Amino acid sequence: MVVSPSASNRSAASTARQTAAATISHAADRLLNAIDLRGAPVCVGLDPDVNRLPQSIRPRGNDPTSIVSAIESFCLGVLDAVVEIVPCVKPQAACFERYREVGVASMYRVIAAARQRGLQVILDAKRGDMGLTADHYATAAFGPIADDGDGAKHDSPDWITVNSYLGRDGIEPFLRPDRGAFALVRTSNPGGDALQSLPLASPSGSARTVAEAVAALVADLGQSHVGASGYSNLGAVVGATKAQDAARLRELMPRQIFLVPGFGAQGGGARDVVPCFDGRGRGAIVTASRSVLYAFAPGASNWSHAVRDAARKMADEVSTAVSSR
Amino acid sequence: MVVSPSASNRSAASTARQTAAATISHAADRLLNAIDLRGAPVCVGLDPDVNRLPQSIRPRGNDPTSIVSAIESFCLGVLDAVVEIVPCVKPQAACFERYREVGVASMYRVIAAARQRGLQVILDAKRGDMGLTADHYATAAFGPIADDGDGAKHDSPDWITVNSYLGRDGIEPFLRPDRGAFALVRTSNPGGDALQSLPLASPSGSARTVAEAVAALVADLGQSHVGASGYSNLGAVVGATKAQDAARLRELMPRQIFLVPGFGAQGGGARDVVPCFDGRGRGAIVTASRSVLYAFAPGASNWSHAVRDAARKMADEVSTAVSSR
Repeated sequence: MVVSPSASNRSAASTARQTAAATISHAADRLLNAIDLRGAPVCVGLDPDVNRLPQSIRPRGNDPTSIVSAIESFCLGVLDAVVEIVPCVKPQAACFERYREVGVASMYRVIAAARQRGLQVILDAKRGDMGLTADHYATAAFGPIADDGDGAKHDSPDWITVNSYLGRDGIEPFLRPDRGAFALVRTSNPGGDALQSLPLASPSGSARTVAEAVAALVADLGQSHVGASGYSNLGAVVGATKAQDAARLRELMPRQIFLVPGFGAQGGGARDVVPCFDGRGRGAIVTASRSVLYAFAPGASNWSHAVRDAARKMADEVSTAVSSR
Repeated sequence: MVVSPSASNRSAASTARQTAAATISHAADRLLNAIDLRGAPVCVGLDPDVNRLPQSIRPRGNDPTSIVSAIESFCLGVLDAVVEIVPCVKPQAACFERYREVGVASMYRVIAAARQRGLQVILDAKRGDMGLTADHYATAAFGPIADDGDGAKHDSPDWITVNSYLGRDGIEPFLRPDRGAFALVRTSNPGGDALQSLPLASPSGSARTVAEAVAALVADLGQSHVGASGYSNLGAVVGATKAQDAARLRELMPRQIFLVPGFGAQGGGARDVVPCFDGRGRGAIVTASRSVLYAFAPGASNWSHAVRDAARKMADEVSTAVSSR
């Protein structure tokens, strides 16, 4: 495992801040508080790829255990590199599940390590099923997975991403007082347009798109889960690459925190994300994965410095854009 | 583990049929062939629930390992009970993932056991992510998970269910020559209506719903994956509870096998599923979970007979309805 200098020198003040944030029960209040404490509404996506690891962290074999051990070391190094800069990380479930049970066990260790460092954690799993089945997925993520009475396990994420296509009964099972869900509304990928930007029939003449209909549903479902911050434990995924839609979606979802992917490698820039924030510059968190994780030069010995610098650059860019709107 | 009498007496003829089906490479051709050999277009969903197990299969403790061991024994017993009746089973990923890595390992053992018995396997995982991330999910399901050169692993399912909300780049990574995907088009749950039945704007006056737009997309994406049977490795999920929509969706998707959930416990009946089939009574497979899995009386010692009888009743009902259309 690589430990960056900043981790070992973590200040008492920083620890106190983390403790303060951790004691807030409502998930949206806790996330917004963590953003305020760090001063930057940004998140680093943990999308580990064995083919892009630093030279100093290479798997010892081609078996799943060796590979997962390497990507876990990388993730822990990234956590230490960014913990003083960002309030939140977002493990990508697919990158771990790709290695089946070995990867799943590792994913929850990484989540535990992130929480131990005082980071908020969004599990990017995009689960989407109905009723009882959705309950099972919520239990997998948030626990307790067995009858051990531990309702807020140390290795459960604060948030999970969920798919909206199944409607209410695909979303509500993930909402808890102390845990939240980001529902897909407008995804950052090119293929999403084929469905999400289709215009709906409008008897009244006020046309809206499929994504806007989903936004209205999400706003409605989230009403009963609003915290002291004015934001709900049901948030929304709105891609940075869909800047033209963000302002309208912000209007439709005044109480949803926006999780904004697509920044960096996918082409979204700092100005594109501004309409995702509310009038006070709050209510959204911008996330980048590859542009931060793989910021180091091939063979670089100080790879974690490059990751930290890329996280800081992103934090500065987004904070500046939001504050100078 | 409970072994039903039918399993130990499995006939040579049956084994020969299974071998014939297994040697077909194209996933849709293989599934339709398996349906023809069994004479019934039905599937049993494996949604194990620790609270509903037969009295003879109870976990020895409340820890995940004990619980998963019990649900796995139950699943293996169900496989033996239905293997002579149905061509296909559908493990519900959430029921296993609920126990994290312990459950995931068990899920792939159950898949391997089903394939070993000559059953076609649909992994109901409803994955939905884009590009590289979807690739990871496809690798998790279909392998190879490490660099071992095994392209058609014994424990990989024949099909997986995927979510359509992300469009093309959320679906295509799951299509392989020998493996297929069922994309969600019209789900069987009540909440799905809120989005899927919304009417789209139609300049030409021919109104269509969101689900019909998704159907058109699925039909288009599936074109290049059609086998000798005339059916594609990209199929569609169309709920039995949405009988009023099925005929139109069948028209829009002439080359998609329909996976039809919602039969039995969710309220769909044999007549409701008829419009999901093509003019020759092919091209769909009806799936039931709870009404078959939990057909036994509490405390029944011969629970596997009740499961077998429920599977046979369902197979007969569906076959009769389809052949007398």
